[in-house]
Formats: sequence, structure tokens, C-alpha cells
Amino acid sequence: MAEASRTTEARRDAVFGRWVVFSPARSRRPNDLKSHNPTNPSPGPGEPRPSCPFCAGRESECAPQIFRVPPDGSLPWRIRVIENLYPALRRDLEPPPAAAPDAEAEEEPGERAVPGFGFHDVVIETPSHDVRLWDLPAEGVRDVLLAYAARVRQLAEHPAVKYVQVFKNHGASAGASMAHSHSQMLGTPFVPPSVTSRLNCMKEVFDRSGNCSLCDFRSKDILISETPNFSAIVPFAASYPFEIWIIPRQHLSYFHEIDQDKALDLGSLLKTMLQKLSKQLNDPPFNFMIHSAPFGLSSSCLPYAHWFLQIVPQLSVIGGFELGSGCYINPVFPEDAAKILRELGCS
Amino acid sequence: MAEASRTTEARRDAVFGRWVVFSPARSRRPNDLKSHNPTNPSPGPGEPRPSCPFCAGRESECAPQIFRVPPDGSLPWRIRVIENLYPALRRDLEPPPAAAPDAEAEEEPGERAVPGFGFHDVVIETPSHDVRLWDLPAEGVRDVLLAYAARVRQLAEHPAVKYVQVFKNHGASAGASMAHSHSQMLGTPFVPPSVTSRLNCMKEVFDRSGNCSLCDFRSKDILISETPNFSAIVPFAASYPFEIWIIPRQHLSYFHEIDQDKALDLGSLLKTMLQKLSKQLNDPPFNFMIHSAPFGLSSSCLPYAHWFLQIVPQLSVIGGFELGSGCYINPVFPEDAAKILRELGCS
Ligand SMILES: Nc1ncnc2c1ncn2[C@@H]1O[C@H](COP(=O)(O)OP(=O)(O)O[C@H]2O[C@H](CO)[C@@H](O)[C@H](O)[C@H]2O)[C@@H](O)[C@H]1O
Ligand SMILES: Nc1ncnc2c1ncn2[C@@H]1O[C@H](COP(=O)(O)OP(=O)(O)O[C@H]2O[C@H](CO)[C@@H](O)[C@H](O)[C@H]2O)[C@@H](O)[C@H]1O
Repeated sequence: MAEASRTTEARRDAVFGRWVVFSPARSRRPNDLKSHNPTNPSPGPGEPRPSCPFCAGRESECAPQIFRVPPDGSLPWRIRVIENLYPALRRDLEPPPAAAPDAEAEEEPGERAVPGFGFHDVVIETPSHDVRLWDLPAEGVRDVLLAYAARVRQLAEHPAVKYVQVFKNHGASAGASMAHSHSQMLGTPFVPPSVTSRLNCMKEVFDRSGNCSLCDFRSKDILISETPNFSAIVPFAASYPFEIWIIPRQHLSYFHEIDQDKALDLGSLLKTMLQKLSKQLNDPPFNFMIHSAPFGLSSSCLPYAHWFLQIVPQLSVIGGFELGSGCYINPVFPEDAAKILRELGCS
Repeated sequence: MAEASRTTEARRDAVFGRWVVFSPARSRRPNDLKSHNPTNPSPGPGEPRPSCPFCAGRESECAPQIFRVPPDGSLPWRIRVIENLYPALRRDLEPPPAAAPDAEAEEEPGERAVPGFGFHDVVIETPSHDVRLWDLPAEGVRDVLLAYAARVRQLAEHPAVKYVQVFKNHGASAGASMAHSHSQMLGTPFVPPSVTSRLNCMKEVFDRSGNCSLCDFRSKDILISETPNFSAIVPFAASYPFEIWIIPRQHLSYFHEIDQDKALDLGSLLKTMLQKLSKQLNDPPFNFMIHSAPFGLSSSCLPYAHWFLQIVPQLSVIGGFELGSGCYINPVFPEDAAKILRELGCS
């Protein structure tokens, strides 16, 4: 395990109110994608890569496993949830004392530092190096989503974990250092800044209109596709070209409470959306993020907390305007992107 | 001038409260950096690039000039402030009706769309293609800063402009499409989301402690360098490795009120910091942003609004965790980065 000379720490500043994780050990993680050398002979499809620890048969090169799918060890695994070998937050540090419910609101603002306690896990979505998430059948994508949910439920039991950010990086320009299909989650001892500001914004809308921001969307122009339980849209003010949100049609606050049926429905829609992006944008790098609610939200907040999944293709680099202002410049109107994605056929 | 099939529009969403500028014309702008072909013979240093509209002698290929330094047209120019030829916001659209002072606070939250009115300008920092900002003498950097300030003062006169974001992109991975040294500014008809949340955070600290977040910093550990008027620090919770903030030591809310002396002081410190980053990190791509206050801030807000300049070297790609949570993972502790930068000698 990588050891840091300073202890991992999380700090909040007094200007942006942003939490930052300081993790020197992270810089030692391998970079599978940057070291790809096209002049090296590649193994054939389906064969494990000699250097990839996420491939079947190389489990011993990984950090400890948390669980696998199927659980029965006599069968080959299809999904593995493991510890991240170069964790940004560390499960072996002292957790901050469990705060009283709703203590967040009472908390002193300004600079703060806490030990870098937390959980950083990796979900290996397939044993095969060359299979992408959307190559799996809908049932396979469902099982990945159910693995996320099961792990989030475990982390929710820990009194010091306030939020779990589930996310996927695909492609080097989306930040991925490993090519083998995987996603990650981080259980944090604080509510991250974007979660706080998202809930504040949704609360403001709710307080004035009585409606949840995400139940309320009406326009057919930005709709890509609908299933019994989910809508896929290009959001009204998409920050990125071809950004997609998949939103439960029913008002639900927590992703991790998803059941088998809804997970299959979501798996099938997510697969279709990733296929469409891959086809339309020529296998672009992308990220997806699940936006859920912090654990133990008071019941008065539930009416405006509505979870969703955001997919962001990374087509251009952001610049100083976006970094400084938090405002994005998007060359593609949501209605145009939605029309293109709606009309695109996928096998 | 590039024409869009849809009219440029700015929209705010009801979930993140984020403003996004939709600007189809932006996708047509040239990309000097991506088209650089190392096998093409380069002109010698000091010679204009055949294809660069920012070089001396090619002024006619640029969008209209706003002003130049020196103003006397019989002398060669050293700095030009011009319109952006592919503007994200357009000065020729109908501005939104001027709102009453403090109307922002009263405004209905949730989804909103306004015409994409605004100002998008470029500051050409030197007539020579190969001169970088930190190659200029301190007086040259001062003049660039004074040109920013002069243009911001002009834009502040417009009743519909609420904020001006001044920023610089250097290098392709920091978003720059043009290699010739330049910066930009965007005058927006709304207060951008990061400005709102920064001021809210500073207000919270002020309300509890009676101190301005940026007047209050004490630690010598994060200090890189100090001049009579400015401190350069690595912020306590830096989001990026080797991030630097240059902060006026006196409590000042607006960058654009800077005078000649302070601008020379800032110019010299900015030059040193950019030299240090270039030396330490081998000419990294970077952005810098000036964080000032929205125009017409009520006098009760001034005690906690303190302007500063943020420099962000772009050393790694951000991933889904940062996009989803707004929380960054930084492998370098601020005290360590500050020590390295403090001790680094610069010619
Ligand atoms: N043998 C092994 N066993 C267990 N785990 C192993 C392992 N070998 C490698 N890992 C881990 O696998 C993960 C692979 O993750 P990704 O490719 O999605 O991006 P990474 O986390 O590197 O960084 C991207 O995502 C993060 C979070 O968004 C950003 O901070 C960063 O800038 C961006 O590049 C790494 O976190 C790595 O530590
Ligand atoms: N002849 C001419 N006359 C006048 N102006 C001309 C011109 N030729 C080109 N320009 C303008 O010059 C500017 C150069 O700007 P930069 O290189 O700093 O980055 P750019 O704005 O392209 O995008 C980066 O910064 C923006 C804002 O942060 C991000 O949205 C984007 O993703 C990122 O790549 C462009 O905006 C371009 O429109």
C-alpha cells in the first residue's frame, strides 16, 4: 500500500466553501492509459492484458475485495467491488466524531481541516479487458447498478460517512487512468460542496413553487427517451454539449434504495444512452455521476431531493471563464442535442 | 462575423442554479494550437506567424479594436483590447431590462432563459508571437493589468452588465485555442454562480467571526512572497497542485479600482509567480482568473468582498468525482507547494 509522508487530510476553505482532499499517495497510482504504446503488440480481444490488474486471473494484484457478483466463489465473477489501492480517502484513519443530526447547519463556517478518513472503492464492471459497460446486456448493466447500490447501503451504515459519490471515468480525457471498464465511489465524511448547493437550489425552487425541480420538467423538446420508470433528457441548461440526465419519473430521493425492476429499467436506458453517445460522437471520453441525497436528510428536505444520473461527454477543455465564474459555454442547444439523440437508431 | 442559426441565449437551471451560455457560433473559432504541426518550418523568434491574427501587422484580420496602448496611433501598439470575433455573448443583442438595485435577491429561482447579451473581449498582451506574459518587464505586466481595469470600468457603465470575468488561458490543456499571448474578459448580464457562492461563503464567515476571509489569513506556512501591497500564497485548501492566490493586503472589493502603483506591484509579483511556475513545472498550461465583486454591491456586502487573482496550473485532468461533488483531490499539500515556490530562485 502506498504510504504518504503527510497524513491524508480534507480541508474546507473560507472563500468558496469548497472541500478539498489532500492525498499525496494518489500520485503513485499507475497510468494504464498514458503508457499505452500503439507499437506494442496487443493481445487479442478477450485475452487478459499482461499488465491490467482488473482482468480475470489477476485478482491478487488488486487491493482487497469487498464483494463479488455472483457471491458464490465456485463460479467465475462478473463484477468485483474492491478497495482502491491508491485511495484519496482512507478507511484506516480515525473517523471524525459522529455529529448530531442536522449539525451541518449549526457548524461554524470558514477554514476547517479533518483527517482524510473515508472510503474509496472501485467497481470492476466485467472480467474482460475489452468489454465496455454498454456492451453488456441490460441485465449486466443492471447488476453493476445493483452493486453500486449495495455498496452505498453498506457505507450508509457508517456513522461518519455523510455522502457517497458514485462516478465513472471513461477515456483518458475524462480522467481515467485505467482502461479496463470500471467505476468508483467515494464515501466522504462531509457533504460535498456541489451536493449542498444543489439541494439549496432545489429547496429555493420548492419553497417558492411547491414543486420539485426534477418532477416538474414538462418540455418534450428536451426528451430523448422514456421508459416506465425513467426519463432521459438533455437538461434545459446543459453545461456540456450532449450532456444527458436520466431521471426517475417518480419522486425518489435516494439512488441506493433502487429495486431490481427499476435497476433493469435504468440499466437498459443507460446502455442505450451510452450507445447513442458512442455512435453520435465516435466513442467520446465521458464521465457519469449519480447525484443522490446526503444520508439522514431530515424529512422536510425529502420533498425537493430527487436523485438522477448525469452523463457528460468530454468534448472540449474548459478554460478560465468556466473555472472563474462557474458558468459554462455550450455551443449546442439542448433541444438540438435531444433531437439528434432521440432520432439516432441503436442496434 | 459568424452567425448562429439559433440566437445566443443564457439559461439558468433549477437544480444547480448554474448559468450556461449557449453559443453555436463559438464552435467555428480557429484552433491555432491544435493545428500546430511540428514538421512545418517555424518562423524565427520575433517574426510574425503567417496565420496568427494577433501578431503585429495583421490587425485587419481581427474583430474591431476597442482601445490600444499606447493610444497614440503613430507609435507601434504594445497592447490591444479588441472584440472577440467568435463571442460567447453578443453585444448586438437586446440587453435584458435593467433591474432595480438588489433585485437579484428578490428574483424568482428556477429555470430561466435570457438573450445571450453581453461583452466578450480579447486583450492581446504583446505584438510579438513568441513573447509570454512573464517575459515582459514588470511595467509591461502592469500595463496589461491596467488595460483589464480600464476595460472593466467601461463595461461597468453598462446598466445590464452585472459582472466581468477576467481570465487567461495558456496552453492547449488549459483551453487556449490561440498560442499568441492574450487574455479575455466576459461581461455577463447575470452574476455567475461561483461569484454568488463565493460571496455567500465569505458572508457566512463574516457574520460569525466579524472578519473578512481574505484579510484574516495568518499562516506563514502557505506564504510564497509578499510585496508592500500584495501577498502570494498557496491557499489553505488549494483545489489544484501549485495553485496560487495573489491577494491585496488591504481590504479592497473591486479589482478595477486598482491604481498605477498597486498595478506595478501586482505586475511584478504576477510575473515572479508565473516565472516560478514555469521553472518548477516546466512551462505548464495554466489559467488565471480575477475574482472581483459584482457591480453595484450594496455597502453592507463590501466588508466581506475582497478581490484576488487565482492562478491554476493544469497538471491533471479532473474526473467524475470532482464533476459530481465539486470536491477536488489534490496530491500536493499547500504548505509543501508554498515551500517549494518560496525557495525557488528566479532570475
Ligand atoms: N491494482 C489495483 N487495485 C485497486 N485499485 C487500483 C489498482 N490499480 C489502480 N487502481 C485504482 O483504480 C482507479 C482507476 O480510476 P480511474 O481510471 O477512473 O481514474 P483515477 O481515479 O485514476 O483518476 C481520475 O479520477 C479522479 C477522481 O475523479 C480524479 O481525481 C483524477 O484527476 C482523474 O484522473 C484509480 O483510482 C487507481 O487508484
Ligand atoms: N481574428 C480574431 N479576432 C478576434 N478574436 C479572435 C480572432 N481569432 C480568434 N479569436 C478569439 O480569440 C480567443 C482565444 O481564446 P483562448 O485561446 O484563450 O481560448 P478560447 O476562448 O478559444 O476557448 C477556451 O476558453 C473558453 C472560455 O474559458 C472555453 O469556453 C473553451 O472551452 C476554451 O477552449 C477565442 O475566444 C477566439 O474566439
